[in-house]
Amino acid sequence: MDERWAERWSRRGRLAAAAERPSRTPPPDMISFVYGDPDWDSLPLEDMAEAAEYLAEHQRRDALGYQNPIRPDELNESLAQKLARDQKMQVSPEQILVTTGSSSGLAMLCDALIDPGDVILLDAPAWMGATTLFRLAGAETIGIPVDEHGVDPDRVAAALDRLEREGRKPKFMYTLPTFQNPSGVELSVERRRALAQLADERGLLIVEDDAYYELRFRGEYPPTLFSLAQPGSVLYCGTLSKTIAAGLRLGYVVGPASIVAAIARVRLDNLRNSYVAALADWYIRTGRYHQHLERLRAIYQAKCERMQQALARSMPAGTRWTQPNGGFFIWVTLPEGVTAEGILPACREAGVDFIPGPAFYTDGSGAAHLRLSYSAVTLEQIDEGIARLGRVVEQALAHPSPVAE
Amino acid sequence: MDERWAERWSRRGRLAAAAERPSRTPPPDMISFVYGDPDWDSLPLEDMAEAAEYLAEHQRRDALGYQNPIRPDELNESLAQKLARDQKMQVSPEQILVTTGSSSGLAMLCDALIDPGDVILLDAPAWMGATTLFRLAGAETIGIPVDEHGVDPDRVAAALDRLEREGRKPKFMYTLPTFQNPSGVELSVERRRALAQLADERGLLIVEDDAYYELRFRGEYPPTLFSLAQPGSVLYCGTLSKTIAAGLRLGYVVGPASIVAAIARVRLDNLRNSYVAALADWYIRTGRYHQHLERLRAIYQAKCERMQQALARSMPAGTRWTQPNGGFFIWVTLPEGVTAEGILPACREAGVDFIPGPAFYTDGSGAAHLRLSYSAVTLEQIDEGIARLGRVVEQALAHPSPVAE
Repeated sequence: MDERWAERWSRRGRLAAAAERPSRTPPPDMISFVYGDPDWDSLPLEDMAEAAEYLAEHQRRDALGYQNPIRPDELNESLAQKLARDQKMQVSPEQILVTTGSSSGLAMLCDALIDPGDVILLDAPAWMGATTLFRLAGAETIGIPVDEHGVDPDRVAAALDRLEREGRKPKFMYTLPTFQNPSGVELSVERRRALAQLADERGLLIVEDDAYYELRFRGEYPPTLFSLAQPGSVLYCGTLSKTIAAGLRLGYVVGPASIVAAIARVRLDNLRNSYVAALADWYIRTGRYHQHLERLRAIYQAKCERMQQALARSMPAGTRWTQPNGGFFIWVTLPEGVTAEGILPACREAGVDFIPGPAFYTDGSGAAHLRLSYSAVTLEQIDEGIARLGRVVEQALAHPSPVAE
Repeated sequence: MDERWAERWSRRGRLAAAAERPSRTPPPDMISFVYGDPDWDSLPLEDMAEAAEYLAEHQRRDALGYQNPIRPDELNESLAQKLARDQKMQVSPEQILVTTGSSSGLAMLCDALIDPGDVILLDAPAWMGATTLFRLAGAETIGIPVDEHGVDPDRVAAALDRLEREGRKPKFMYTLPTFQNPSGVELSVERRRALAQLADERGLLIVEDDAYYELRFRGEYPPTLFSLAQPGSVLYCGTLSKTIAAGLRLGYVVGPASIVAAIARVRLDNLRNSYVAALADWYIRTGRYHQHLERLRAIYQAKCERMQQALARSMPAGTRWTQPNGGFFIWVTLPEGVTAEGILPACREAGVDFIPGPAFYTDGSGAAHLRLSYSAVTLEQIDEGIARLGRVVEQALAHPSPVAE
């Protein structure tokens, strides 16, 4: 990078220039529990070809044209029907802003709501993608601890009180209540009601990221925060990345029609991903989507249970982990004296990879934790990868701080 | 919008909340010369279905997975070969950042380079999408007049001098040198050389938007500014929206590998539009893309010539217009005393629509001008639409300031 560029970057550009983005492709022989990528073999390539054929046969040229991200029909309509059926959310197509993946919806919310220096509340731990977005936007973040039942609304209220005494108010709270990323836990129904009530009473906007709601393989479907709170208290972010394919880049933000229309205008470059939106619309309307979901739930249940068994078999005493009812992630707490960043080099050496806990906190904590994704690996990789992890943790316990670089 | 939202918006959010986004769908019976949408009937729906079938047959599951926006292979590789062949630009795949449409590339450049209050130079007139992006980013804009040979590098130098005396320096200059949007003119080769030299000598970064380069139907292909300037002096923005389909949302930014990698990191939500990227890669590699380009050049030449004839036949004396050698747009200068905004209501009443000149300037000028797009309309609509426009201008000349609201 030549020296002329030093003075060219903006505040955000300087952060980006100084950052690194790791490759998404693991080296050969590495068993990677890093990314929450969907199961590879079930990606519906043949169905998408059939959908493309349907669009050609029916001369759906609108699928190749410029289209606004909010439409009264097509994918907006099929998503509204799906939300009513599956999430019990009664919304009109005009309340749905179709985005380029869920991350783009969240990024538009940052553009529309955050000025540098603004405060937001978020789960601690929280999805590292969200924490990166908030950092790029210049937000100050306050983490609300997640326990086995999700975030505690009383601690949210206490944070609001503390800020109020300083004359401050958070722009929103970002939370992922169902099969939380990274912890895998879900917010209890009681806490959902309390958090929705808090949002209504205190004017706290909640950004509800619900990427994994449909991937439940155990237990009852809880009400969403969106459906429990008053209109305008919650913006709901969904995605088709986990349930159809990440490569389609399709997500959505649901809220009052006038609000999502304003959020859409915060970016000029957010026209609809028309072609893939039309493919997904066909997929939902034909019922293939719901058939596919059934397959996915069975796949992820099998993988999750296999990882639970492997952890029980391979991890030394003193290791704890969550037992998710759905989603992609298990959150591991290492035995006393072992840190995830400490063992990472030896784990990679041994051919197993994961994300250490501190990546999910904005205050540097989380040393004892790590996130395991079971979604993208095979059952055999789960057995072997967890065995490798277990051996490294055993060694770390036997030789305190042995392998740190 | 309830009152809680008043204090929720950011600087950008307030701009967005106050703005309006017109529908892209004209009312029935309206002949719309508004948008630079590609020719409808030539949109390659059948080819895309064939490409989708190819991906299914070859088990290209990577096309449905998360992928980084910069790859060493696939669409990056076929674009690099295409740029070498068609634009005489020698670049490696790693120098190409694939974006969600060209507008998303430009928006990422704004994120990476512009802080509120920064100055940028731009064509006057300039594409209103770019001016909207710059306004949302909080930039101060200085327009450099475009004449029949494009922008004058001497006037760019004078603007740099003026800013330098104020102790300021523009973050970049945004220019669209080939079949300029909105004017339809092209930057002469002599001026291209002078502008590239100016960029090198003065450290002025140029953002070259070259959306229409391949849609030439007359004249020689000129060198791009990118190929005339030193590495790092020009970032080149291209798109497949005009040459394959806007609904694919595929554009690209070309520059030094380390710079485009840093720009990619300015957004977390810019993962590759994998599925459509793989479709486009197939389209380029099979040669269908270049066959399609031949058809498109003939289609747009016929439409442009038809509009030139219709203007000559229907517009009153004193009207002038540009004669493009490619692209989608003709820029009209109305007779003395008639303004585009003044006649717009009567035009819409008569069933013809266009964009008045002031939308393309950031200083409120351009009253005598309007942009006509011939790309999306049929030959018959061109004849009838221009006849309607001609009649309204005749009436405006006969009755000064007759129909303004």
